[in-house]
Amino acid sequence: MLSPIQEYIELLHSRYASSMEGQVADYIPELSKADPRWFGICIATRDGHVYEVGDTRQSFTIQSISKALVYGLALEDRGEEHVLSRVGVEPSGEAFNAISLKEGSGAPFNPMINAGAIATAGQVLKKDGKSRIDRVVEYLSGFAGRDLEINQSVYQSESETGHRNRAIGWLLRNFGILDEDPNETLETYFQQCSVEVTCRDLALMGATIANQGIQPVTRKRAIASEYVDNVLGVMATCGMYDWSGEWIYRVGLPAKSGVGGGILAVLPGQLGIGIFSPPLDKQGNSDRGIKVCMDLSRELALHMMNPAATPRTAVRLEYHGGEVVSRRRLPPQAREVLRANGTLIKIMELQGGLTFTTIEPVVRNACDHAHECKHVIFDLRAVVYANSVSLILLANLGTRLASQGVRVIFCQPGRLLAALRTVGISDKDVFTTMDAALEECEDQLLLEVTGVSWRPHAPLKLKSCTLFRHCSEEELAFLEQELPRRQYGKDQVMISTGEIATEMFVMVGGTVEVQLRTSEDMRKRIDVLTAGMTVGEMAFLDGSARSADVVVMEPVECVVLSKEWFDGLNERNPALKIKLLQEMTHEIASRLRQANMAISAFHRS
Amino acid sequence: MLSPIQEYIELLHSRYASSMEGQVADYIPELSKADPRWFGICIATRDGHVYEVGDTRQSFTIQSISKALVYGLALEDRGEEHVLSRVGVEPSGEAFNAISLKEGSGAPFNPMINAGAIATAGQVLKKDGKSRIDRVVEYLSGFAGRDLEINQSVYQSESETGHRNRAIGWLLRNFGILDEDPNETLETYFQQCSVEVTCRDLALMGATIANQGIQPVTRKRAIASEYVDNVLGVMATCGMYDWSGEWIYRVGLPAKSGVGGGILAVLPGQLGIGIFSPPLDKQGNSDRGIKVCMDLSRELALHMMNPAATPRTAVRLEYHGGEVVSRRRLPPQAREVLRANGTLIKIMELQGGLTFTTIEPVVRNACDHAHECKHVIFDLRAVVYANSVSLILLANLGTRLASQGVRVIFCQPGRLLAALRTVGISDKDVFTTMDAALEECEDQLLLEVTGVSWRPHAPLKLKSCTLFRHCSEEELAFLEQELPRRQYGKDQVMISTGEIATEMFVMVGGTVEVQLRTSEDMRKRIDVLTAGMTVGEMAFLDGSARSADVVVMEPVECVVLSKEWFDGLNERNPALKIKLLQEMTHEIASRLRQANMAISAFHRS
Repeated sequence: MLSPIQEYIELLHSRYASSMEGQVADYIPELSKADPRWFGICIATRDGHVYEVGDTRQSFTIQSISKALVYGLALEDRGEEHVLSRVGVEPSGEAFNAISLKEGSGAPFNPMINAGAIATAGQVLKKDGKSRIDRVVEYLSGFAGRDLEINQSVYQSESETGHRNRAIGWLLRNFGILDEDPNETLETYFQQCSVEVTCRDLALMGATIANQGIQPVTRKRAIASEYVDNVLGVMATCGMYDWSGEWIYRVGLPAKSGVGGGILAVLPGQLGIGIFSPPLDKQGNSDRGIKVCMDLSRELALHMMNPAATPRTAVRLEYHGGEVVSRRRLPPQAREVLRANGTLIKIMELQGGLTFTTIEPVVRNACDHAHECKHVIFDLRAVVYANSVSLILLANLGTRLASQGVRVIFCQPGRLLAALRTVGISDKDVFTTMDAALEECEDQLLLEVTGVSWRPHAPLKLKSCTLFRHCSEEELAFLEQELPRRQYGKDQVMISTGEIATEMFVMVGGTVEVQLRTSEDMRKRIDVLTAGMTVGEMAFLDGSARSADVVVMEPVECVVLSKEWFDGLNERNPALKIKLLQEMTHEIASRLRQANMAISAFHRS
Repeated sequence: MLSPIQEYIELLHSRYASSMEGQVADYIPELSKADPRWFGICIATRDGHVYEVGDTRQSFTIQSISKALVYGLALEDRGEEHVLSRVGVEPSGEAFNAISLKEGSGAPFNPMINAGAIATAGQVLKKDGKSRIDRVVEYLSGFAGRDLEINQSVYQSESETGHRNRAIGWLLRNFGILDEDPNETLETYFQQCSVEVTCRDLALMGATIANQGIQPVTRKRAIASEYVDNVLGVMATCGMYDWSGEWIYRVGLPAKSGVGGGILAVLPGQLGIGIFSPPLDKQGNSDRGIKVCMDLSRELALHMMNPAATPRTAVRLEYHGGEVVSRRRLPPQAREVLRANGTLIKIMELQGGLTFTTIEPVVRNACDHAHECKHVIFDLRAVVYANSVSLILLANLGTRLASQGVRVIFCQPGRLLAALRTVGISDKDVFTTMDAALEECEDQLLLEVTGVSWRPHAPLKLKSCTLFRHCSEEELAFLEQELPRRQYGKDQVMISTGEIATEMFVMVGGTVEVQLRTSEDMRKRIDVLTAGMTVGEMAFLDGSARSADVVVMEPVECVVLSKEWFDGLNERNPALKIKLLQEMTHEIASRLRQANMAISAFHRS
């Protein structure tokens, strides 16, 4: 089905396709050959999806757009302070070819004017046997996600007619901003401007910057994440020649334009935009490009200062240990204790990106309510990103809460595990599953409240098993005599998915896991049963196929109730049959209540 | 418990408390009286919480910080295009007191230099019998959330010594940028700069801007939301005098400083920062203020270009109608149909802020999978904000899907309801509860699949009621004879929370709702039961207190099973008792399976 977003950019394209304002750059003959009707619009998402319309695959030269990206390479090669000592980051309020050098130092105002861009190219190192220009082309290719090439005839023209830039080069040499003969740097600069790109490339380059420097299609890093801010910073203040202030005011996207007719714009952290249309306005920016970006920003609400989407808090869901319990079956008394004291276990499920702003309310909430709980579990499953300040705050919170007798546990960290270690969170406080985290807290809580372990000392007498707890001495004797005993060893499969249920079991010793088969060889634990509990009664009761596997964790001893025996009870001992059915109904109803409580907790937010 | 965030800003404060670089402004005697040791740091969140340390309640004059805010008032009074015709938005690269006027028009480069600020003050209207300065003070007070006042002695000094500004005023009059005698405008400007604020005020002013113009404590709008971007835009490019480029590069927060020693900074959409420390650096910015903001930005990762926290998609959870069903009880055959065909109902729970970027993957997903479903439900409960472009895209998607035979339903819109109507979404496609939305889709799906309505034609024979479906003719006759019938009228309460359960009911006609009492007079529907179903069996079976109310929606006819009668069956008709218990167990087990499936769906993500 045609996406409404695709339809929108097609409409936008047709809105300006016949607009013919502006002049194609003609300072070299190669550029003047551009067809003024060429017009492409691309939007690339952070996961590499590209919406495109028009001449999005037409090659043209990148020109000044390269300035923003090569600035990143210079920063990677030389570090921020060194580069800042050679090139400022202050908008000059003057045109792109003004020779704006600061009084005294001779440093160009910023890397987006020609003087600054030439000085920046001079900062790129020759390295690993590669020339400056080879490294520049390789670097730009990383953003595009494909091998870019230099248009040699444009380069020749640029080089032959670049007298003013040569003058700038020698002035920079004079001030010691360039360390060596400027000619090689100038040739690097002319070649860098002559790299051929398409509108689609520009959008993906933008998406790479939006994606913190990782090219969304190749998944390879194009620029060190620490310098993404810097590149965006100079694009924001100096990217559109002497229309930069107006651009940020009206469009609100860090951007860079080139005289080839391209504009690359970025919504930081969100998406990249590429526009291509050769006719330029009087500031040297693509005329249609400016119009399209103004419409895009307004109509799609992409203005960077538009604060709409920031979530207020990272908490997705908050619930307590009385509402949601670990997926194992506990004896009724233990369940009762948890129901009554469950608020002492607080679970906060976090989501989205963890930053100072989203974690601050979490920390505040935990500090304010520290006295109300003994255990805090942070479920990190839905966290897509966590910066280090957010994790440092969580680690610090954990230490402080521990000093108040509150244990903090992190669970389901996924890829965040290494980062948790880095901020000093101990492995013993990190659990890979929510069940394991809940079990740990529940066991501690049960021990604190009751003073004894809830775990049964096996083997149990039948009287101590839930199903038989209301049986008389006489009935127990009857059961002892009638029901066969069976043993299962560790890892043995007691029940297998798909089998027709003809038996159920009452465990007097051991532990089993109920596992759901999620695929051919993946199993997901959904329950843990211990001595005293009934196993396999659900399918047994309705005579249906087993819906899960039951696998032995600790050796099991059990009594076996066969379908035949259970049916026979109707005649042989109806009173016992009724008793057992009532007990099973009671047990299942109690689990249903628990499940409904959990669903209500999940529905809340 | 002391928050680690509070601890952090205390550490930050002590790091610079003894730093004494910079000079207190002394161009008027009043300013030179400031104690160079005064030093305050505040961070205000978008919900109005303030972290503060040091001299955060000390009054000082707002000075140039007022320029950014009064610019908002001028925009509100005159509109963007008019104001732009008088004052540009281009950084000048020059000092604050430079007389930077554009060639030709004479328009000041931007509203943050003195010339631009005076021109801006001249744009403020006299209105509702209020003078310009009264309106300005009232406007600034709206951001602070308290009544601000002018420091008269500072104002007198500013006025007496403001010769250069008077010259600027007359130049602006000469170019027609000011329409009238500049003296009144100049006095307004001098007074506006002399308004007294505290560091805490600055942080809350910043939080107001971050909060889209609504003061977080008073909850009153301080600035029209459409101009928030514009104010942030000029702060971003021109806020810190001729250090603005470097500021955005290093600190990355739109900000404005004043010679009184204040800095107001904003992380758009997230938080406000206020710093107060009178000694100024050579650009006229608070020396400690700059240092603190650089540390804050780096250590808390607040740089605006830092793209960390943006979620990739608005989808919080995706599940289908086979996993989660409406909370009403359906006959077993209908449940079976839904289990088998449930994937035709697709539910997407959206969350956070809906913008182009977060809704784009939702739209893409829906377009790509349009052929796999007949119903799409968007659950908007967890959406905190939706801009109009996101809703337009959803509405457009709904129209397109409808043309492919897929129905789109929006549920739980809350405050978004009016906005949904605005973008043309019909009320018939909007449901206030998830249950109602699911019921609608389920009913349609059941009708499509089976060709008949699942709703029973009441009154039913006992044989058609689930509990009795396996009974023999003889047993049915026994039940007809033994069980009393009862009627309940609309709104009558069949079961009341807290009562001890002594009866259960089998409905042969009517509909009831099971309602949970969430507070004294709030009830939440958790189940709907129709003819053929058993009511009140859970508490009946374990003899416990009723956990919910059951209220009649459509007049009920039912048979009543009393505890006494049911217990008596053990002796009188054990075979029937066993049959009934097995049926009840079967039914409860089936609901438990459904509940477990829903829990698994909620656990996934």
